[in-house]
Amino acid sequence: MNTQTPNQEIDLVMRQSAAVFQQYRRTDAKSRASFLETIAANIEILGDALIQQASAETNLPAPRLTGERARTTMQLRMFAQMLLEGNWVEASIDTAIPDKNPPKPDLRKMLIPLGPVVVFGASNFPFAYSTAGGDTASALAAGCPVVVKAHPAHLQTSVMVADAIAKAAQSTGMPAHVFQHITDGSFDAGKQLVEHPATAAVGFTGSFGGGKALFDYAAARKTPIPVFSEMGSINPVVFLPDTILNNAEAVAKQYAGSITLGMGQFCTNPGLLIAMETEGLDRFVQSLSKEIEAVAPAKMLHTGIYKAYGQKMEAALAQKGVSILSRATAKPADMEPLPTVAMVEANVFLKDLLLHEEVFGPYSLLVKCKNITELQDVWRSLTGQLTTTLMGTEKDFAAHADLLQLAESVAGRIVFNGVPTGVEVCPSMVHGGPFPACTDSRFTAVGINAVKRWVRPVCYQNCPQTLLPDALKDGNPLGIWRLVNNQLTKD
Amino acid sequence: MNTQTPNQEIDLVMRQSAAVFQQYRRTDAKSRASFLETIAANIEILGDALIQQASAETNLPAPRLTGERARTTMQLRMFAQMLLEGNWVEASIDTAIPDKNPPKPDLRKMLIPLGPVVVFGASNFPFAYSTAGGDTASALAAGCPVVVKAHPAHLQTSVMVADAIAKAAQSTGMPAHVFQHITDGSFDAGKQLVEHPATAAVGFTGSFGGGKALFDYAAARKTPIPVFSEMGSINPVVFLPDTILNNAEAVAKQYAGSITLGMGQFCTNPGLLIAMETEGLDRFVQSLSKEIEAVAPAKMLHTGIYKAYGQKMEAALAQKGVSILSRATAKPADMEPLPTVAMVEANVFLKDLLLHEEVFGPYSLLVKCKNITELQDVWRSLTGQLTTTLMGTEKDFAAHADLLQLAESVAGRIVFNGVPTGVEVCPSMVHGGPFPACTDSRFTAVGINAVKRWVRPVCYQNCPQTLLPDALKDGNPLGIWRLVNNQLTKD
Repeated sequence: MNTQTPNQEIDLVMRQSAAVFQQYRRTDAKSRASFLETIAANIEILGDALIQQASAETNLPAPRLTGERARTTMQLRMFAQMLLEGNWVEASIDTAIPDKNPPKPDLRKMLIPLGPVVVFGASNFPFAYSTAGGDTASALAAGCPVVVKAHPAHLQTSVMVADAIAKAAQSTGMPAHVFQHITDGSFDAGKQLVEHPATAAVGFTGSFGGGKALFDYAAARKTPIPVFSEMGSINPVVFLPDTILNNAEAVAKQYAGSITLGMGQFCTNPGLLIAMETEGLDRFVQSLSKEIEAVAPAKMLHTGIYKAYGQKMEAALAQKGVSILSRATAKPADMEPLPTVAMVEANVFLKDLLLHEEVFGPYSLLVKCKNITELQDVWRSLTGQLTTTLMGTEKDFAAHADLLQLAESVAGRIVFNGVPTGVEVCPSMVHGGPFPACTDSRFTAVGINAVKRWVRPVCYQNCPQTLLPDALKDGNPLGIWRLVNNQLTKD
Repeated sequence: MNTQTPNQEIDLVMRQSAAVFQQYRRTDAKSRASFLETIAANIEILGDALIQQASAETNLPAPRLTGERARTTMQLRMFAQMLLEGNWVEASIDTAIPDKNPPKPDLRKMLIPLGPVVVFGASNFPFAYSTAGGDTASALAAGCPVVVKAHPAHLQTSVMVADAIAKAAQSTGMPAHVFQHITDGSFDAGKQLVEHPATAAVGFTGSFGGGKALFDYAAARKTPIPVFSEMGSINPVVFLPDTILNNAEAVAKQYAGSITLGMGQFCTNPGLLIAMETEGLDRFVQSLSKEIEAVAPAKMLHTGIYKAYGQKMEAALAQKGVSILSRATAKPADMEPLPTVAMVEANVFLKDLLLHEEVFGPYSLLVKCKNITELQDVWRSLTGQLTTTLMGTEKDFAAHADLLQLAESVAGRIVFNGVPTGVEVCPSMVHGGPFPACTDSRFTAVGINAVKRWVRPVCYQNCPQTLLPDALKDGNPLGIWRLVNNQLTKD
């Protein structure tokens, strides 16, 4: 699995990707939409065989994988729909004013694709954030050829999905090499892909170490390129006093479920619980403990993640002032992690940066704060997060409305009275956030705006109508929303 | 001028900027618009004194500076208008679907500012790309406090404008330190500003060396931050055969004017002319030569730029196969550059990368191509450009429509039958382009979209109405365009 591809194979793949770019980006919206829809259909045609293969490689149960597959095909169809609607190009027209001094030319602008995109999928989402996941779907929609480096932890699943994409490309008349699949699992292959001159942008979902390394390679290139690495976070949850007083048991149950969902293998897993030592906290802790103790064991994705969980958790638990609140009581078999909730005082947490790091798996740390100031200090001390959550009653929010601005500065998504796990796919979703949640907080990995990572604006000055792209022609032949002389219109 | 600010002064400035960020970003659109409008008014109040100061420091003539000042105040008012309209936050709402499985939460998204922005102005635009220029105006509009590092080449001008901004901040009730001005001209001060933990983003306009250094410092930070460096380009102009045949004299006159406008001190100056050896090219060359010979001398901005022009031009002219086509005949005084057009064969140009580099000043290189294939090879061999231009008749464009896709891949703006100098400020403008024209081709430095460099999306999940920002509240109290369940509406 870790055999090394010779340099020239990666070179060939990237040169093929570059060679097909101009042809692919000129395909019309309808053809590209049909391509994406056919990928979705082809994935569905793979049926149970795909689910079984993915389950064998990842230890994820069939229902979870079936849900993830549905999300993946839905995403592909969402981007197809986006292409058919056509508004995503952000067409803008400013007509000429010849008698202005100096004369104002006719200026028109739209988004065009960057070029070949290299995608690194995530081990914890073999479908939705992998071979035909959000990065691939959004890049293909934008008009960028895609090269996927298969995740070695689900290589055969990736091969099956890649085959579904290749067949869709062929049956919908897409040019050869619009999608290519690299099965070389080596670290060096990834580095070569990012450093290749033909690579225009990179999408990555995974660990901080991996995502940051790719970012560094890209920044060090002679021609730096954008890298969107989504690198996970600890997703702090703030529990306010009145909800602890009134809803301790319900909230504890809800969070025990979120912490251990899928054995905690989500980048939105709530790894940090922040609360004040107010009335009801003991009940919350007791309920949470009882729920955690009862969690049934299940295998993690692969040995590397399983071992890392044990090591990172033990390192956290070994820190001075950290105590175990509760652990699952079922004896774990090999590859089964021990769901664990630990506890620490805020003043200890603030000084111990190791406790701020993600422990990927069914682990969470409760930080007990003396007062609201300490709670704010703890929250503010964190690095950038994908999500942060506020659990509170109306009374809580009335008393602590000012906490919102802190939440905004911490994360890309703010959840109220819910759990951060579960990332809805829709235009208003933000899956990103301040560094190190991702490498560029101005973008999102989920929802139609994910396409913005792979496009750039180009302006046409006094361009003859015959040469203009349809999106910018007079008469709006595509019937899309455009900004015309600073007014949004379909006219 | 190059005295070094102690580290602690920069540290204090950046901490003050960070401290005021939350307060400033919560100011309402009306107040912020009033702030920007008052800056514009205060700059106008400075009257002739400001023009005289700038002229004394930059050698730029008063009419040119008067025009640039008008552009600067117009930009400030444009961003004020953008705030009053309010659509720029890209509000998006997806309402809940409780009976979906799993239930879909209510999700709402808008853009919020990144934090303190450090701005490095350009020597060639003491107003429009400097202290109160596009970077400052767009960042202040976004809700980011701004720290400007004054350009040492027009320090007193910068001080006068900074004072106009400070007065506007005070009279419109903006918090202290919303704008700060660093007069330390040292290289090290710039490095410290970019590396300071409180700095959230950087805007730069100037040379490749300076802009790339800031990009590298930012990428090497523990927490990397976005840097938008606009670093100029050679702005290739392609002359097609039929326009050379029919319009040789007119086009030559137009281009002699553009090459020497403001002594070529524009980042959009046409530094490369590409043409085929077809009928009429001799007439074009003769006319261009005659026009260049007649150009009246004028001083450059400062000694550094004047010396660099001489050195870079001589280095280009010393390359094998490069010959001088024409030079201005007037004997230049000190600080006055020699307007020069040189010539080279395409096959030489393709092999000599030194000739691809910008010679900042009134210099342009004509590349003679044997045929259309060679012309395309020359064009394709260039690095990223701010602009590229196509000069052609209807007949030319009918015969060479396929050239457009090459133009799109080369530059951020494509000009047809015009000159690249002159950057209109409007929503459809793109002032950026593939690296090294700027450090991130997905953004623009000019027009309202310049604000996108300083903002990130944040998503509110199941947020109580009372806590939501006005832009996302039910009932649309701001009356702005919003994407509601994927439909653009003001309802």
